[in-house]
Amino acid sequence: MQDLQNPLGVGGFELFPWFLNSRVWRRMHGLDGGETGVDNQMAERGFEGIGAWILGRNMFGPVRGPWPDESWKGWWGEEPPYHTPVFVLTHHPRPPLRMAGGTEFRFVTEGIHAALEQARAAAGPADVRIGGGVATIRQYLEGRLIDDLHFAVRPIFLGAGEQLWSELDVPGLGYQVTEVVPGERATHVMVSRLD
Amino acid sequence: MQDLQNPLGVGGFELFPWFLNSRVWRRMHGLDGGETGVDNQMAERGFEGIGAWILGRNMFGPVRGPWPDESWKGWWGEEPPYHTPVFVLTHHPRPPLRMAGGTEFRFVTEGIHAALEQARAAAGPADVRIGGGVATIRQYLEGRLIDDLHFAVRPIFLGAGEQLWSELDVPGLGYQVTEVVPGERATHVMVSRLD
Repeated sequence: MQDLQNPLGVGGFELFPWFLNSRVWRRMHGLDGGETGVDNQMAERGFEGIGAWILGRNMFGPVRGPWPDESWKGWWGEEPPYHTPVFVLTHHPRPPLRMAGGTEFRFVTEGIHAALEQARAAAGPADVRIGGGVATIRQYLEGRLIDDLHFAVRPIFLGAGEQLWSELDVPGLGYQVTEVVPGERATHVMVSRLD
Repeated sequence: MQDLQNPLGVGGFELFPWFLNSRVWRRMHGLDGGETGVDNQMAERGFEGIGAWILGRNMFGPVRGPWPDESWKGWWGEEPPYHTPVFVLTHHPRPPLRMAGGTEFRFVTEGIHAALEQARAAAGPADVRIGGGVATIRQYLEGRLIDDLHFAVRPIFLGAGEQLWSELDVPGLGYQVTEVVPGERATHVMVSRLD
């Protein structure tokens, strides 16, 4: 379950040591050092050539229902690590929110296709990255709208949570595993739509 | 879905190249050669010191309902690779079946606890191995009756199938990941009950 203290759900950070210890994560947060192995390389690949992001509402924050005010500005402080337009899926309209460092949150109420269209227009020749969470990725997978997906497998039991693949006929949707790269703290599985 | 041509379900063999190419698997089937790396070592560990096996009915065969006759003798031919008593969970009684090489299939209709008790008695100081399938392992996990579990992660999409961990509160049952070993064709995740 997500709340203010648990943006990734209870225990969710335990899925991410491969990323949280990487040089690329530390740089994004203005920190020196960090690991430079396979996990870092795989994380870096995911940030190359991204011109716009799409996030689900819960990935943007713990606020549910209509926005009570404009005070919630994401989990990431004044300068979020996106540096591009970020399209946030929501049922409740809200004016765009310009942050330091080039990130602008734009709230899309017309659904996943509209968000993708707007993100593509904003990205131009660059790629659009869908940052999550699970429900958002599932919707785009079901629509066969994702070309390539990086799935980092970290074997840990959380006890509860959203299931990314459950009840999805992934090969029927045209997806296959195209690459498996063992990292220091996770196994990186690359999934692509082949048809 | 399981049938005579698909003992592991459609596509299920694609989960097992780490095992089917190993020296230990080939030896069990009277064949020379085979790979001798990490995958083979992990497979070998699973056969050491086993004094009895427990299998679910579907792991024994594709026959459903009451046994029409005694003709089905398992997937493995005249000399199955167990070489111990093998307790088969079923709702339908059937006399024991003695095979070549020390395997004896004994059919248990009184449920998972009775099967475990009988398997322990047969194994003496040796270990009991639960061979599967998924539904059987889940029942023993829910009963906190498994001490150690070897989970080989092979990233592949089958599109449908039984889910080993889904909806189980694994940490609540006392289980944790204790070891992660990257192999040549699978990542080996060791899970143990710690309380």
